[in-house]
Amino acid sequence: MGEQNEFDNAVRAKILSHALPHIQNYNGKVVVVKYGGNAMTEPGLQESVMKDIALLTLVGVKVVLVHGGGPELDKELKAIGKKTEKIDGLRVTDEETASIAQMVLAGKVNKDLVRLLQNVGAKAIGLCGLDGGMIKTKQLDPKLGFVGEIEDIDIKPIETVFNAGYVPVISTVGADDEGNVYNINADSAAAAIAGWLKAECLILMTNTPGVLKDVNDEDSLYSVLTSADLEGMIEDGSLEGGMIPKAICTIRSLEMGVKRVFIIDGRVKQALLIELLTDEGLGTQVTIN
Amino acid sequence: MGEQNEFDNAVRAKILSHALPHIQNYNGKVVVVKYGGNAMTEPGLQESVMKDIALLTLVGVKVVLVHGGGPELDKELKAIGKKTEKIDGLRVTDEETASIAQMVLAGKVNKDLVRLLQNVGAKAIGLCGLDGGMIKTKQLDPKLGFVGEIEDIDIKPIETVFNAGYVPVISTVGADDEGNVYNINADSAAAAIAGWLKAECLILMTNTPGVLKDVNDEDSLYSVLTSADLEGMIEDGSLEGGMIPKAICTIRSLEMGVKRVFIIDGRVKQALLIELLTDEGLGTQVTIN
Amino acid sequence: MGEQNEFDNAVRAKILSHALPHIQNYNGKVVVVKYGGNAMTEPGLQESVMKDIALLTLVGVKVVLVHGGGPELDKELKAIGKKTEKIDGLRVTDEETASIAQMVLAGKVNKDLVRLLQNVGAKAIGLCGLDGGMIKTKQLDPKLGFVGEIEDIDIKPIETVFNAGYVPVISTVGADDEGNVYNINADSAAAAIAGWLKAECLILMTNTPGVLKDVNDEDSLYSVLTSADLEGMIEDGSLEGGMIPKAICTIRSLEMGVKRVFIIDGRVKQALLIELLTDEGLGTQVTIN
Amino acid sequence: MGEQNEFDNAVRAKILSHALPHIQNYNGKVVVVKYGGNAMTEPGLQESVMKDIALLTLVGVKVVLVHGGGPELDKELKAIGKKTEKIDGLRVTDEETASIAQMVLAGKVNKDLVRLLQNVGAKAIGLCGLDGGMIKTKQLDPKLGFVGEIEDIDIKPIETVFNAGYVPVISTVGADDEGNVYNINADSAAAAIAGWLKAECLILMTNTPGVLKDVNDEDSLYSVLTSADLEGMIEDGSLEGGMIPKAICTIRSLEMGVKRVFIIDGRVKQALLIELLTDEGLGTQVTIN
Amino acid sequence: MGEQNEFDNAVRAKILSHALPHIQNYNGKVVVVKYGGNAMTEPGLQESVMKDIALLTLVGVKVVLVHGGGPELDKELKAIGKKTEKIDGLRVTDEETASIAQMVLAGKVNKDLVRLLQNVGAKAIGLCGLDGGMIKTKQLDPKLGFVGEIEDIDIKPIETVFNAGYVPVISTVGADDEGNVYNINADSAAAAIAGWLKAECLILMTNTPGVLKDVNDEDSLYSVLTSADLEGMIEDGSLEGGMIPKAICTIRSLEMGVKRVFIIDGRVKQALLIELLTDEGLGTQVTIN
Amino acid sequence: MGEQNEFDNAVRAKILSHALPHIQNYNGKVVVVKYGGNAMTEPGLQESVMKDIALLTLVGVKVVLVHGGGPELDKELKAIGKKTEKIDGLRVTDEETASIAQMVLAGKVNKDLVRLLQNVGAKAIGLCGLDGGMIKTKQLDPKLGFVGEIEDIDIKPIETVFNAGYVPVISTVGADDEGNVYNINADSAAAAIAGWLKAECLILMTNTPGVLKDVNDEDSLYSVLTSADLEGMIEDGSLEGGMIPKAICTIRSLEMGVKRVFIIDGRVKQALLIELLTDEGLGTQVTIN
Repeated sequence: MGEQNEFDNAVRAKILSHALPHIQNYNGKVVVVKYGGNAMTEPGLQESVMKDIALLTLVGVKVVLVHGGGPELDKELKAIGKKTEKIDGLRVTDEETASIAQMVLAGKVNKDLVRLLQNVGAKAIGLCGLDGGMIKTKQLDPKLGFVGEIEDIDIKPIETVFNAGYVPVISTVGADDEGNVYNINADSAAAAIAGWLKAECLILMTNTPGVLKDVNDEDSLYSVLTSADLEGMIEDGSLEGGMIPKAICTIRSLEMGVKRVFIIDGRVKQALLIELLTDEGLGTQVTIN
Repeated sequence: MGEQNEFDNAVRAKILSHALPHIQNYNGKVVVVKYGGNAMTEPGLQESVMKDIALLTLVGVKVVLVHGGGPELDKELKAIGKKTEKIDGLRVTDEETASIAQMVLAGKVNKDLVRLLQNVGAKAIGLCGLDGGMIKTKQLDPKLGFVGEIEDIDIKPIETVFNAGYVPVISTVGADDEGNVYNINADSAAAAIAGWLKAECLILMTNTPGVLKDVNDEDSLYSVLTSADLEGMIEDGSLEGGMIPKAICTIRSLEMGVKRVFIIDGRVKQALLIELLTDEGLGTQVTIN
Repeated sequence: MGEQNEFDNAVRAKILSHALPHIQNYNGKVVVVKYGGNAMTEPGLQESVMKDIALLTLVGVKVVLVHGGGPELDKELKAIGKKTEKIDGLRVTDEETASIAQMVLAGKVNKDLVRLLQNVGAKAIGLCGLDGGMIKTKQLDPKLGFVGEIEDIDIKPIETVFNAGYVPVISTVGADDEGNVYNINADSAAAAIAGWLKAECLILMTNTPGVLKDVNDEDSLYSVLTSADLEGMIEDGSLEGGMIPKAICTIRSLEMGVKRVFIIDGRVKQALLIELLTDEGLGTQVTIN
Repeated sequence: MGEQNEFDNAVRAKILSHALPHIQNYNGKVVVVKYGGNAMTEPGLQESVMKDIALLTLVGVKVVLVHGGGPELDKELKAIGKKTEKIDGLRVTDEETASIAQMVLAGKVNKDLVRLLQNVGAKAIGLCGLDGGMIKTKQLDPKLGFVGEIEDIDIKPIETVFNAGYVPVISTVGADDEGNVYNINADSAAAAIAGWLKAECLILMTNTPGVLKDVNDEDSLYSVLTSADLEGMIEDGSLEGGMIPKAICTIRSLEMGVKRVFIIDGRVKQALLIELLTDEGLGTQVTIN
Repeated sequence: MGEQNEFDNAVRAKILSHALPHIQNYNGKVVVVKYGGNAMTEPGLQESVMKDIALLTLVGVKVVLVHGGGPELDKELKAIGKKTEKIDGLRVTDEETASIAQMVLAGKVNKDLVRLLQNVGAKAIGLCGLDGGMIKTKQLDPKLGFVGEIEDIDIKPIETVFNAGYVPVISTVGADDEGNVYNINADSAAAAIAGWLKAECLILMTNTPGVLKDVNDEDSLYSVLTSADLEGMIEDGSLEGGMIPKAICTIRSLEMGVKRVFIIDGRVKQALLIELLTDEGLGTQVTIN
Repeated sequence: MGEQNEFDNAVRAKILSHALPHIQNYNGKVVVVKYGGNAMTEPGLQESVMKDIALLTLVGVKVVLVHGGGPELDKELKAIGKKTEKIDGLRVTDEETASIAQMVLAGKVNKDLVRLLQNVGAKAIGLCGLDGGMIKTKQLDPKLGFVGEIEDIDIKPIETVFNAGYVPVISTVGADDEGNVYNINADSAAAAIAGWLKAECLILMTNTPGVLKDVNDEDSLYSVLTSADLEGMIEDGSLEGGMIPKAICTIRSLEMGVKRVFIIDGRVKQALLIELLTDEGLGTQVTIN
């Protein structure tokens, strides 16, 4: 309560009022949020993200929340004593591991997020790529086993949930035509979902301030880039390792018709509201060149 | 821009976030605003009210804007050299005056407000009580001529406008079954409209802080009253003259099912946002006892 | 009653029955009526037009009533002692005059027509070009000040009103993107509205029998013309002055897809019914060549 | 064409205009017409009735056309050499006769009427009581065989046809739960259908001017009666034989909620238009007392 | 009951279950059934076809039942002593005969089928080509009189009936623009209706096992043919006489977009269910080559 | 294929046809299936149940699949080495165990069922009681920890899924107002869901033939019981232990308006089809007394 009182009503009303043009910008638009990193693992940040989504929903933004859940999966694998190896940072996934990933992502992480959204007054329904056969998948690479690449998305389950007034929360597992289950990289899945939905924007929540000129200098942030810039940076090797797959997803979703992609720092409290509803934003905004 | 920068993004996002429970409270609800006084005559306040309404609309509040326009009517009457007398503060209204009131309210004040709302990005349609035969009127008092009292309201024009996504802006003139035009007191009309719409709340914008214990002391504000309190104050003579008709309107609309009435100070910038979307509000809130 | 009895029931029923093919022709079609001249200023004719519109509406014609109001505007300007000059018959319009035009047209003329329609049992809602940002305008000619030319029309307010069962009555004022108000020539506005609505027909009510071969001979009426005929007549100077702008509007609306334009004599009682529901019509019908 | 010219346009427009209040009265209302007698057997009258219905439909009246077809049935029975006897004017109907009645009514009379309506520009669909199980019937009297009495009506087939914009034309055959077919008196069926539809009015087209004081004097017409009057006249024997069953149907439909019943002279050209759209009407109007 | 018990529940459930992929195949699809031959004249087969249609409807198939009625027409013509001659198997049809055909088909055959469908629990509405002006016809050959060829079909009456949940049962009579009635060959009409509806399949119920290599050997059935095969067989004279018009209809409907045509043996009990819901089917299936 | 051929087409069609009245009985009705026991754990039975549900859905039954998952939960608890104790057969559930139950039920069991349904051609969406705040829960007994009892059900998520054409598959976890997660007995949850949905029937799939007179004699099955019978059997101790809670659920759902409850033997292949679509059924049917 003290916190709320440090600004008087007039200040608060003025700030609400300044959000008007930003709200008008996003009202009725689809925004796909790839949720992950600290924003998902730190309880304080987590609740703040849920409130941001509740607020965005109320001001008419059609938020789709897409999540992975690597840390929770690691914990479960460790608890049952199952060892997995990684190739180039991607987990080699046997059938049992894919099934465990489905269980942890769609049953634990997903439904926990649904519950948290409901707790802050939003209405949410959790889906995974198996529901309604939403995400058709094929094998990415035989060496990796049941790691999937998206072939096709049926957006009807998402629209069903939207039209009934719920926030769709989506776990990124899918199946092929034979019914084999695959784990899918959440960034790629979010980018594909944003593309299929012709989203206004895709927001990738990360643990860095955005795309950096100098990976060791958090102040060297690029505020604005084009997809061509990103392609150049991939080619000339100036992107750090973890940023490369995010850059690729970014480029793909822009090519599929997403208007802009924000790579933002999920460690900043209320990063979503700052990015979407204030004058400056905080991470890197990428548009098609 | 300087003004916007006096608070950093984090503060702004936090304040937006604090509005969440208030927005949840009013989302999807009907709020009738009786607009008048300085809030309507001072250009700076006027634009700020329009922005507040645009914002409230975007966060899902169904705002109905009801207005009078005494000062504009006085100006027009003076310009054409027409003299009118008043009895107990009410203008004796001959047929010509009623016609001029219709012209000024429905043609000048109403459409100016529509244009201002459109300018700040809201969608609005202006109506008067004649449109669709919305407000059926009878004579209030033969001595006053064409001053009307509301007999019946057909809310279909308001719902038509709402359902198509427009803010209804309403001038308070009406007609009887013979087609005679009457000028109607805007406070009474707003109260009746709120009653017929079973509104969540009615907001009366005035030039005082609200209901005062001591009319000469603006700090002697009652924050919360019941309709019974107001009735008592009318009976024991403790209300100042101008507040008595507002108190009567307040009581009537509460009796018709409006959940709460706010009598607020329209001279305060962003009074609407403060009242509806912050923790404290600023005027007097009246509920049924 | 005597008047009604001069024909017996059988005659009356036969005549009703003869209207059948004409009603079938216009049922469900949009007809834009530009209302003006004596038909608007003579009370007897005025009521008769309102009844005609009520009847047309009942037989399934979707009537849009577009009106100007020069005589009422002149009266108001005179009453407040404001002088305006005219260039080539068009009023030089300063900001104050534009505002007065808005007030007179949208507040007096428009709402009076709405009331008259309601009185004869039709349902009507009055709009002006500011409502819902319906008519986007730009300056026609700097010398004329705030006289507007239509740039764009958003037909959603008209369709909203139609779908709810009301006759839209439209005042021809509009605004530019900065919110400046312009007065628009009612013939041009009606033609543009008819074009945007892809109307079945546009009816221009005038004080002449139609397009005349010899302006001094009311019997020299052209019953049928093409837009090419009209263009020729403009070029070879055979049209009298006041008919030229009407001819230009006619040609434009036909080019925008209106099927036919009727230039009719509004001084004839029930001219609308005669033109649309009897075998012969009375004015000049123009179609695309 | 000559006929059309015997009145000039002004007269015709005036007469159309006089129909306005009558059209307003019936617009959107259900009117059930029991069609029979000379109006059905004389080709000239037949076409005129079809045009009247087309016109009534266009002015928004929801006409249901219910017909019998005794003369056509007689002709068919005679053609195949089948003899039937009558008891109190009602045909003793064996199973074969019921089947022939179904064939003649639903296949010949009904579809001929549909075709005639289509020919004058109306849209019509022919139904009988078997379609959609619309009319559930039981035996009226074992002596009469397959002559039915209505037990229940499912109005969904009628509403389906109405909502798609067609005039429902209904043959009065029905079936019991075992699927036996019954012929039903058309007056009773029309009265029951009007009752189930809560029709605004039921019109019984007969070969007399209406209910007569003196059955031998066509000028002794009762213009207005109540259901109580009719009951009295049945009791005191002052009704001629053929009118008694019509009187009973009239009373029943009024009791079921039909607002008024007209017993009119189908031999008069355009009797329907005269009754519904002119000032005086021509037959007997009966309302609930 | 004995019959039902000859297989135990497990067997029955297994067989139901085997129908699953077939039901999935036809669910939501339009299937036009040309009903005729023994399947229509033998009461036992007739009831079995009605039950099949009721079942197909329940599993989501949109069945349209199209019928002729030659034998019933012959019976009626004989009963009234009317002689008609035939040219190449087609009846020379004068106006009276066309009218009798309308009566028998639309009033007797059609409504009997509707009643039978209702009796087994389906909901059905009977239509003929006159209803809603559904089938526009022209003369096939002056020598044949009122034998029609289809010019145009308005599918709205069929869709109206479908959308309200009824099976449309259609008699194949139609009219030209002057309102003359024509009898239409039911195979041709069914093929045209299937074509206009873009049906999934057309089923022609005949009195042969299908298309035979050797017309005297019922075991010489072609299971699968293409439209090109059929065309070849027409040209090289290898089709027996009665099959030629059916082959022509088949080819036409395939060219209009029908996916497949089944020519099946209506003398086999439950031929429709066997063809559509079991693994093998029984007649000749024709697809576009 | 051999299996399918052991009966010829005629037999198969006849058996399909015998299902007609049963399909008519359940068409458009809600059937809640509590899935569990061997039917869920034996892969062969599992696939057969999925096919049964796909078929029931196609014939218009609105199936809701409710499941528990005790064996899978035991397996997971064992894998991570977590010990739990049971009181009267109910697991004492700490917060961690409730969370694991959520994960296993909503993530593994639920989504596996969704995938299997999709594999056999049905469309399905998996939900748990947290989605859309569907199941509001309170603590059943402090000794049992987070074992829940249902307080309220919001059926909107189920209806949303139904209306979009999906089978809702529901895991029985829920939350209280503080957001604590509870595991709920699946029989109770299915009964409550059936009650809230006013289901036509509730089917409890068990590992016994139904309610037995003598628990050691599988042939001593009661085919038909009333809720009063069951109450009597609970009181006089004649029900074996495991059947008592099922009996209580049965009684409750009947009291809430479910028309009938079937307690059936899930070990029988295609038990659902036999129960719903054949003449005899196989388990115990209970109706309200």
